[in-house]
Amino acid sequence: VNRLSQQIRFIVEIDKLKQVVRQTILMDRSRAENSAEHSWHLALMALVLSEHAAFRQVDVGRVLKMVLIHDLVEIDAGDTFCYDEGPASASKTERETAGAERIFNLLPEDQAKTFRALWDEFEKAETPESRFARALDRLQPVLHNYLTKGMAWRKHGIRKSQVLGRNQVIEDGAPALWSFAKAIIEEAAQKGYLASDPS
Amino acid sequence: VNRLSQQIRFIVEIDKLKQVVRQTILMDRSRAENSAEHSWHLALMALVLSEHAAFRQVDVGRVLKMVLIHDLVEIDAGDTFCYDEGPASASKTERETAGAERIFNLLPEDQAKTFRALWDEFEKAETPESRFARALDRLQPVLHNYLTKGMAWRKHGIRKSQVLGRNQVIEDGAPALWSFAKAIIEEAAQKGYLASDPS
Repeated sequence: VNRLSQQIRFIVEIDKLKQVVRQTILMDRSRAENSAEHSWHLALMALVLSEHAAFRQVDVGRVLKMVLIHDLVEIDAGDTFCYDEGPASASKTERETAGAERIFNLLPEDQAKTFRALWDEFEKAETPESRFARALDRLQPVLHNYLTKGMAWRKHGIRKSQVLGRNQVIEDGAPALWSFAKAIIEEAAQKGYLASDPS
Repeated sequence: VNRLSQQIRFIVEIDKLKQVVRQTILMDRSRAENSAEHSWHLALMALVLSEHAAFRQVDVGRVLKMVLIHDLVEIDAGDTFCYDEGPASASKTERETAGAERIFNLLPEDQAKTFRALWDEFEKAETPESRFARALDRLQPVLHNYLTKGMAWRKHGIRKSQVLGRNQVIEDGAPALWSFAKAIIEEAAQKGYLASDPS
């Protein structure tokens, strides 16, 4: 099999990400978002919001690559709701690592290694680029929930403390975006888009 | 209005690209593709296929940016089928330019200029990066048509000569990808996925 054939096989395989449905609802409230269009939205957010990254010298090109590929493992593993605390959450790492093994290895070996390294970097969340990428990945569904009057939050009875706890990592990657997120979470709670925390 | 508010307004506005439906059918034949997931697919193709670009020194980062934003104008202008030769095709440039004016100008002025320059570069197709980006934009629907047994081609009665004529620009940006495209177009014609040309 020559390089181009391997590359085309990968390009064909990843068409399946367009069928991986998320909990997030589009802002016009018409339907659930899929992971391919989600990844595109994060890439645009990276281009537009990079000045708010916690570290000045963030390499936007690497952030773009990370957000574009970060969800490919969901072709095998499915999307796991970020507030899930059940068995799906417990097995997430294992399922996604198996997906990474299979999907990236459709590529020629050098490219498979590069893609896997980018995915590992995203998962570890240690570098400025991966922390910024993860901040965007958390901010986007908060924004969608806010603008759909909490459609996904209400469906699952999510509480304000859960949203604050789960998304605080935004601060690591982009403190200004965490301030923005906190403000809309507060407003969402006041408007009744979130379930009550036990007082 | 501060910068972040303008940026968020843009990020909210572009959610609409997920609702712009194309003629291309997903490879599993389940539904039509939208322009957001199409743009994501092109970005992955740029990452994987850049070694096949006509010019060795192609700046992949700029290719990524171009393919990520090239269809935003469709939020206002809608998608125009690439084989359309009617009034939609005649007014395409005008409608899309008006879309570019409105949508990019939601951003802070410096970012609006950067995005507009990238879109203009893509449209003019003069640089190595824009020629490669356009080659990917043409190759992707050919691949989808080939794998769906010509679903979109057959719906519109598209002929082999039209497909060859319309997509020959792939050669300008990526000669090896044009060889590949010609081979699958030839096979598609033999399998009856394309209408007959008058002999």
